[in-house]
Amino acid sequence: MSDLAFAGIAELAPRIATGEVSPVALTALMLERIEAHEPTLNAYITVMANEARADAETAAGEIAAGGIRGPLHGIPIAVKDLFATRGTRTTFGSLLYADWVPDYDATVVERLRAAGAVIIGKTNLHELAFGTTSINAHHGAVRNPWRTDCHPGGSSGGSAAAVAAGLAFGAMGSDTGASIRQPADCCAIVGLKPTFGRVPKYGALPLSWSMDHVGPMTRSVADAALMLEVLAGHDPRDPGSADKPVEPWSARLASDPKGKRLGIPRAHFFENCEVDVMAAVEAAIGLMADLGAEPVDVALPDMDAALAAGNVIIMAEAHACYRADLERDPSLFSDEVAATLEVAGFYTAEQLLQAQRLRRHLTAETIRAMRGIDALVMPTSPIPATPIDQTTSAQNLARIQNTIPFDLISLPVVSVPCGFTGDGRPVGLQIAGPPFDEAGVLAIAHAYERHAGWHGRRPPGFDE
Amino acid sequence: MSDLAFAGIAELAPRIATGEVSPVALTALMLERIEAHEPTLNAYITVMANEARADAETAAGEIAAGGIRGPLHGIPIAVKDLFATRGTRTTFGSLLYADWVPDYDATVVERLRAAGAVIIGKTNLHELAFGTTSINAHHGAVRNPWRTDCHPGGSSGGSAAAVAAGLAFGAMGSDTGASIRQPADCCAIVGLKPTFGRVPKYGALPLSWSMDHVGPMTRSVADAALMLEVLAGHDPRDPGSADKPVEPWSARLASDPKGKRLGIPRAHFFENCEVDVMAAVEAAIGLMADLGAEPVDVALPDMDAALAAGNVIIMAEAHACYRADLERDPSLFSDEVAATLEVAGFYTAEQLLQAQRLRRHLTAETIRAMRGIDALVMPTSPIPATPIDQTTSAQNLARIQNTIPFDLISLPVVSVPCGFTGDGRPVGLQIAGPPFDEAGVLAIAHAYERHAGWHGRRPPGFDE
Repeated sequence: MSDLAFAGIAELAPRIATGEVSPVALTALMLERIEAHEPTLNAYITVMANEARADAETAAGEIAAGGIRGPLHGIPIAVKDLFATRGTRTTFGSLLYADWVPDYDATVVERLRAAGAVIIGKTNLHELAFGTTSINAHHGAVRNPWRTDCHPGGSSGGSAAAVAAGLAFGAMGSDTGASIRQPADCCAIVGLKPTFGRVPKYGALPLSWSMDHVGPMTRSVADAALMLEVLAGHDPRDPGSADKPVEPWSARLASDPKGKRLGIPRAHFFENCEVDVMAAVEAAIGLMADLGAEPVDVALPDMDAALAAGNVIIMAEAHACYRADLERDPSLFSDEVAATLEVAGFYTAEQLLQAQRLRRHLTAETIRAMRGIDALVMPTSPIPATPIDQTTSAQNLARIQNTIPFDLISLPVVSVPCGFTGDGRPVGLQIAGPPFDEAGVLAIAHAYERHAGWHGRRPPGFDE
Repeated sequence: MSDLAFAGIAELAPRIATGEVSPVALTALMLERIEAHEPTLNAYITVMANEARADAETAAGEIAAGGIRGPLHGIPIAVKDLFATRGTRTTFGSLLYADWVPDYDATVVERLRAAGAVIIGKTNLHELAFGTTSINAHHGAVRNPWRTDCHPGGSSGGSAAAVAAGLAFGAMGSDTGASIRQPADCCAIVGLKPTFGRVPKYGALPLSWSMDHVGPMTRSVADAALMLEVLAGHDPRDPGSADKPVEPWSARLASDPKGKRLGIPRAHFFENCEVDVMAAVEAAIGLMADLGAEPVDVALPDMDAALAAGNVIIMAEAHACYRADLERDPSLFSDEVAATLEVAGFYTAEQLLQAQRLRRHLTAETIRAMRGIDALVMPTSPIPATPIDQTTSAQNLARIQNTIPFDLISLPVVSVPCGFTGDGRPVGLQIAGPPFDEAGVLAIAHAYERHAGWHGRRPPGFDE
C-alpha cells in the first residue's frame, strides 16, 4: 500500500474512476499513515477522520452508481488551516480563531469538493501565516519529513510536510511572501503560487490582502496543474478575483524545454546563497541547457527594493488587519507575532505610499525586462531548512529574499525540487513567468522535473 | 467690444472662422482688459503678451489661408500655473518652481494649441494647489471680481477670476479636493471636474496623484462641453489616463431636464449650509422640478467618512511628494503650507490603508445607491466666498465638504451658478453623474442654465 500512498493524483484518478482503487481504502490508508506519523510531524491541526470516511463512502457510492464528480474524485486532499471549512474548526494557527467553526466553505474548498476531493484535514501553519518556520506557539512546531530536527518552512509548513510524507495527495497553501514556495522548497515538493486573481481568496483568512495568494502544493508538476484546473476561475465574492478562463494546464505540459529562453537573474536572487544551494541550482540550469533550453542573463529592476517594498506592504496591511485584536487582548498572540505587529505599527503613510509606488514601477519594469524571455529561473530560497532549535531572526530575511518579489510583482511561480544539500536538506528551483502565463511556467517545470531525477523520492522513515 | 469680451466660445468660434472676428483683435482686447484689471484682481502670475500676440497672428494667417486648426481657433484661453508650458515659466504658485521653464507642454496645453487656442497667460493659484482661497504668500492674493474684498476660491482662483471678469474665454483648472468647482462657485462660472482618467494629467504638477483631476472652467456649460471635447482622450504618458473615446458632448446638450431623476442627498451635502446658499439651491431644485425633472431623496453611503478619507489620502500623498523639499529648504514654503505638510507627516500606514479601503467601499456603495438616478444635485459649497481678511481655518473644512467626496469617489461633476447671497456673493449648484457620464451631467447642467437666468451676468466694474 505504500506505493499507493505516494501515487500521483493524475495516475490515481483513472484507477479510482474504474473502481480499481477504492476511495474508502485510500482514505483509510491516509488516516492510518496520519496516525502513525503525526506524533513525529505534527502536520495537522485537525484531522477530519469521520468526515473524510463519510465523504469517501459517498464518493465510492457515486462510482458504484456510475458517476464521478471531477478530476479529484475520491482523492484525499489536505487544506491549510486558514481556509474556512463548513462545520470544521478553522484556527489560522492563532488563538484568535481557536473556536471558530465556519458555516461556509472557502471558494477553493467548495471547488475541491465539487471536483470530488475528500478533505482529510486542516494543516498546521505559522501563526496567522505570519512567518516562515511553522514553529507555532499554540499548536507546536511542524517537523520536516526529510530531516525531523528541521522546520518544514512556512507558513504552509503542515501542508508541505503532509504532502512530502504521504499523508495527503495534495494540499492547499497560501503565499504572501514565501508561504507556498519556501515550504515546498524545504520539503522537496512542488508549490505553485499563481498570478494574483487567478485563484479566488473568498474564505481565506487575510494576512495582507494585496500580497496574499492561494495555490496548490503537490508531489509533481502534473498534479499542481490538475489542481489548478479545479481551483482557478472567477468568483465575484473575491473583489480581487480575475475574470480569466480556466485553461487545460495539465494537458499542455511539455516533455522538454527545447528552445525556451530562460532568464537567469544573477543579481539579488543568486546572492547570499549557501554553497550547496548554488550548486544544485547551477546543475539544474545546466541540465535545462543540455535539454535545449537557452539560459540568458537578465537584468531585472532593483529586487532589493522589491524585498523592502513587499515587507512594508505586508507589515502595514497585517497591522491594519490585526491591530485592534492585539490592543484588545495581547495574550491571544505569541510574543513573536505580537512583536512583529507592534513594529509594523510604526510605518508611516509616506513609507507605505512609496512602497505602493515602487510596486507599480517595479511591476512595469519587470514585465518590460522579461520581453523575449519565457521564464525566469533561480533558487527558491538562498538557504535550506534549518534545525528547529537553531532558527534565528537573521534567517528571516533570507527565507523570503527570493519569493517576496513575486508576491509584490504578481507573476505565476512554481518551486520544484532540484536536489539536496550534503546533509540531506532539500533545495528548490523557482520558475517564474509573465502574469497569467501559468501554462508556460508549468510546462517548463514539468520538462525539468521529468529529466532531473528528483521527482518521486520519498523521505526516509516515511517511505513504507 | 465689451460684448465680445464676454462672448461664449461656442458663439465666437464660427465668427472667427468666417473672418468676422479677428484673433488678433480678440487677443489685443484680452491683453487690454488684463492690463486694466490685473492691478485689482491679480489673476495671472504670467501674462504671455508677446507669445499670445504672435499666436494670434499665426491663427489669423491660417484663416486667411483658408484653414482653422480646431474649435478653439484664435480664442484666448488661460492656463492655471501648474500646467507645464514650453518656454514659459511654470511656478505652481510655489518658490520651489520659481525659475522653472519647462521644455515641453502638458498634454492639455498641447491639445488646446492643436485646437487653435491662443494661450494668453498662466493664472495665479493657491501655493502648490494646496488650499481653497488662492491667497498666495509668494504671488499675492487673487481677488473675486464679484466682491473684490473676497477671495475667489481656490486653488484655481486665478482661472476662475480671469474667466468671470472677461480676461479669458475659458481656462484650465485642476481639482484635488475642490479646486475647480469651489472657485467656479465663488466666481459664478462653470467648472467641470471630469471622471478620473478622462483628461490626461501629463505635465500637470502633482499634489495628490490619486485625487488630482484636471478640467475646464468657462462661462457656460456649452463652452465647458466644447473644451472637454478638446481636452479628453487617452494619453499613454499619463498612467492613470483612461482609454475612453471622446464624445460629442457639445452636440448632446439638452434644452430641458424633463424626466430626469435627480437624487438629492440631504445628509452631509445640505449640512452646515448658509441660509442664502440653501435658498438658492432649493430654488434651483424647484425650478428643475417645474421643468419636468423628478427630484428624489437619495441615501448615499457615509460622506462624512468620504471627507475624512479624502483628507487623509491628499495629506499623505502631498507629504510623499514634498517632504524631501520641505526638509531640504523650509524657506521655500509659506508658513501655511509648511505647517499643513508637517501635520501630514504624522499619518500612519494603517490610517492610509483604512482610507484606501474606505475609498473602494464608498465608491462601490455610491454607484449602487445611484442606480436609477440620472444625477445628484446639491450645493457646491456650503459657504460662499469670504472676505480675504476674514478667512479662518474653521472655513477650510466647509469649503471642501461637498467637493472632496467626488475626488475620492471619482464621479464627473459640474458646478453651475445658481444665484447670489443677499450681499452679492455667488452660489453654485453641483451636479454629479455616474463615472464617465459627462454627457448626462452636462446635459442636465445646460438645461438648468438655459432656464435659470444666472448665465451671462457680469461682475459690476468688469462689465464694460
